[in-house]
Amino acid sequence: MKKEVPVGVSARHIHLSQEHIEQLFGAGYQLTEFKPLSQPGQFAANETVEVVGPKGSFGKVRILGPARKATQLEISRTDSFAIGIKAPVRESGDTEGTPGMTIKGPAGEVVTNDGVIVAARHIHFHTSDAEKWGIQDKQQLKVRLGGERGLVLEHVIARVSDQFALDMHIDTDEANAAGAKTGDTAEIID
Amino acid sequence: MKKEVPVGVSARHIHLSQEHIEQLFGAGYQLTEFKPLSQPGQFAANETVEVVGPKGSFGKVRILGPARKATQLEISRTDSFAIGIKAPVRESGDTEGTPGMTIKGPAGEVVTNDGVIVAARHIHFHTSDAEKWGIQDKQQLKVRLGGERGLVLEHVIARVSDQFALDMHIDTDEANAAGAKTGDTAEIID
Repeated sequence: MKKEVPVGVSARHIHLSQEHIEQLFGAGYQLTEFKPLSQPGQFAANETVEVVGPKGSFGKVRILGPARKATQLEISRTDSFAIGIKAPVRESGDTEGTPGMTIKGPAGEVVTNDGVIVAARHIHFHTSDAEKWGIQDKQQLKVRLGGERGLVLEHVIARVSDQFALDMHIDTDEANAAGAKTGDTAEIID
Repeated sequence: MKKEVPVGVSARHIHLSQEHIEQLFGAGYQLTEFKPLSQPGQFAANETVEVVGPKGSFGKVRILGPARKATQLEISRTDSFAIGIKAPVRESGDTEGTPGMTIKGPAGEVVTNDGVIVAARHIHFHTSDAEKWGIQDKQQLKVRLGGERGLVLEHVIARVSDQFALDMHIDTDEANAAGAKTGDTAEIID
């Protein structure tokens, strides 16, 4: 049985705490939905912010909602060189000891102590997909992307939940190295 | 016997014909050497140019010398989106039907009809390395880059010549997807 997974390419984006949303957009501000994402309940917001590092800045960085407990910027390694922030490869939410950034919004500015990461490649599995294929939460997988720039990604982390929809998330460096785009299909080979 | 190869990461760069060098820098102009590259006789020049596409431009694009028969810009896929030039993945020198660009130098400007590519990943083998490992010119190889972003690149093209020094050339997207840098070691696994 082929273990085929749809590919979702994550461009740089930011998750914000409600406290930071209010500092950036005004007291009591609530994010508004631009479009839903593949994972249930998650959405791209209409709102964007500017993110500033020592060597450069990114305007119009998309906010993904809803608000989270902690603010987190996810960038590619290419981005990390451009902006001058040495972001480590981390799983989402694992921001301890990561570098901080300056975030600018229409109503204010926030300087964080941490929260800038390069997201570790991962696959969201609904519990039923994981059971069908015998895959455990946190398992590391090898996944092949085909085509003229075909490659096999190692250390792809399985994340299993009944709140998840089947989708592999890679960043723009990984997508461009593979010549892949959102909607392509990848195959778990090990 | 492990087939280990040093990694060289190619940032965006340009090769120019002597005619274009003179249009950009002045009649009779000769490139001057900034530093030698891994391949015998090749060098990074002191000179840079600006390259302009429909959606953006890159200032200070490094010229690699010596002059070639045909002008060729090598960019990453990330670069191709930023500049708005749909560059195909090609082997160096295979520029037929590729998109063109505008090049700006201190003495003039050149508009080309073709020459913009994303370089296909490849390994330069000295004839003696290729013989030792049983590798043929043009053979496609699978090459593993290790580490926390470990991956296996497929379709890595072997280029064999007694003018070459052993070196694998990948672009910045591939390097960043793998967390690799110049001087790392890759292993040919198939």
